[in-house]
Amino acid sequence: MMRRVLSGIQPSGFLHIGNYFGMIKRAIEWQDKAETLYFIADYHALTSIKDPQHLSQYVRKIAMAFLACGLDPAKSIFFRQSAIPEVHELAWILSSITPFGLLERSHSFKDKVAKGLSPTVALFSYPVLMTADILLYQSEIIPVGQDQKQHLEIARDIAKKFNNTFGEVFRIPEPDIQEEVAIIPGIDGQKMSKSYNNTLEIFGDLEEFKRRVMSIKTDSTPIEAPKPTKGSILVALYKLVATDSEYQEFIASMEKGGHGYAYYKKLLLEKLLAYFQPIRERYKELEEKPGYVEEVLADGAYKARMIAQETLTKARRAVGLLD
Amino acid sequence: MMRRVLSGIQPSGFLHIGNYFGMIKRAIEWQDKAETLYFIADYHALTSIKDPQHLSQYVRKIAMAFLACGLDPAKSIFFRQSAIPEVHELAWILSSITPFGLLERSHSFKDKVAKGLSPTVALFSYPVLMTADILLYQSEIIPVGQDQKQHLEIARDIAKKFNNTFGEVFRIPEPDIQEEVAIIPGIDGQKMSKSYNNTLEIFGDLEEFKRRVMSIKTDSTPIEAPKPTKGSILVALYKLVATDSEYQEFIASMEKGGHGYAYYKKLLLEKLLAYFQPIRERYKELEEKPGYVEEVLADGAYKARMIAQETLTKARRAVGLLD
Repeated sequence: MMRRVLSGIQPSGFLHIGNYFGMIKRAIEWQDKAETLYFIADYHALTSIKDPQHLSQYVRKIAMAFLACGLDPAKSIFFRQSAIPEVHELAWILSSITPFGLLERSHSFKDKVAKGLSPTVALFSYPVLMTADILLYQSEIIPVGQDQKQHLEIARDIAKKFNNTFGEVFRIPEPDIQEEVAIIPGIDGQKMSKSYNNTLEIFGDLEEFKRRVMSIKTDSTPIEAPKPTKGSILVALYKLVATDSEYQEFIASMEKGGHGYAYYKKLLLEKLLAYFQPIRERYKELEEKPGYVEEVLADGAYKARMIAQETLTKARRAVGLLD
Repeated sequence: MMRRVLSGIQPSGFLHIGNYFGMIKRAIEWQDKAETLYFIADYHALTSIKDPQHLSQYVRKIAMAFLACGLDPAKSIFFRQSAIPEVHELAWILSSITPFGLLERSHSFKDKVAKGLSPTVALFSYPVLMTADILLYQSEIIPVGQDQKQHLEIARDIAKKFNNTFGEVFRIPEPDIQEEVAIIPGIDGQKMSKSYNNTLEIFGDLEEFKRRVMSIKTDSTPIEAPKPTKGSILVALYKLVATDSEYQEFIASMEKGGHGYAYYKKLLLEKLLAYFQPIRERYKELEEKPGYVEEVLADGAYKARMIAQETLTKARRAVGLLD
């Protein structure tokens, strides 16, 4: 039997190729090897997004983006977190056995507050809601980055404590931690991130995209001279979108010398445009079919809810909320 | 238009006359002068009751007790908190604007932990769930004791902050604080409380009830001598169940002297039994009709849910969870 994999997706109106190669692509690949659930974490987003217009737009945009990037509703369950309010009831039940100290020791609260988020109760209890997300769907594998490792530990602790206290209700989830996270460089060489304004937007303006690729930071090696390839932003980005032989050729050409950086930037630009063109086209098509996107999410919510209600009924019985 | 009054009821398997005169009677009296909602706080109870059998029994027992004590389903909405899981979704939404420090400063968490409850996340975030209970039903008046005053302040703060941030969604609730809380003495003279084992159970064994009344603590005033009435447990309890003229007579007789304490205990016992006899009888009848009690609670849940869903839809729209 296929194992069940759950991924949460932050709603966002801006997706760059760092998000794509760092997370989206990898998440979607699971759909071919497991039973996958993907949810757009709009309840979680309330801890950071306080503008209602933004939130609902971001949800729609990320839904279109994932579908454009290849999420297949025939293979996966794709839904809005807020379509399954049962998660909050489970979160309350879990919070009744979650030691306060377990969350107090979690770094994410302090880290997020240090980054400027309001220290709210939701931000504090976020790991319990995340645990409820995971356990509600009896998820077995959770693909996470290193930064989410502690949250997974918390989820496992809570699941075990519940099962020990009230009887076996939940599967114990396993993290799937990506050991070597590919850090995608931005156009200035720092990690690609919205906050550094060094991103290449996937669904943004095409002229801006070109302009940014052409302004990728390079050194002052003369045209004739061999170019350093180690630590080169161009090489790192080219590798993501080229075949292996194209990549080898690219390296060899740089090492040989004879071309200026503009030449390599144009090669990279072509590859990037070719890679993302079908994705951009699908996104455009989806923009014309908002009804289709809603249908996909409604269908996903229906399927997710069946699993959720079954689990919640078991949990309610276990604690005495149902006879 | 009648104002809307909300009362939460702790599930409990043991009700004594201290509960009745301290809380139940007063809560039920509201049904004649306001639009009343009464809910059995079984979600809250998860913070203290970890035995599923106990919880579901306590819920049933307190439901029967309130109906026996006069709660009229034709006048009130009476329901289980857990029948309206919407409250947790609202609690999450509210927690996203509730400052962590607001709960950190609340004494109830520390007080409850000091009393031996586990310091869980649910115990900590309890004031947010209580706020959601209140705001979900657009309650206007909340009858509370002095110990709950701070929780009401928190509820008001959260409601105002939400309305200021996202637009007017919630009514701002007002506390109805019982200034002079009648402290009902137990048979040893301390406040009647299960933890002192000095209670007179309303629905317990009748022989035990009699035995306990006859063992009420008295002093060693001789039979012939006038009895002190100030601070007398007998007088305090008699006053609760006698008419005014009966009470005056009781006092006059004690002040005159000539009867031993056993005589007054018997008078008190008679009055207590007469007072609670119809209540005990109704309780017995309800025990024979579990289907009726379930029907009442289901009907109440249906009505409560209509109000809850209307409020929740407004709140979701306001924060951007619905378009």
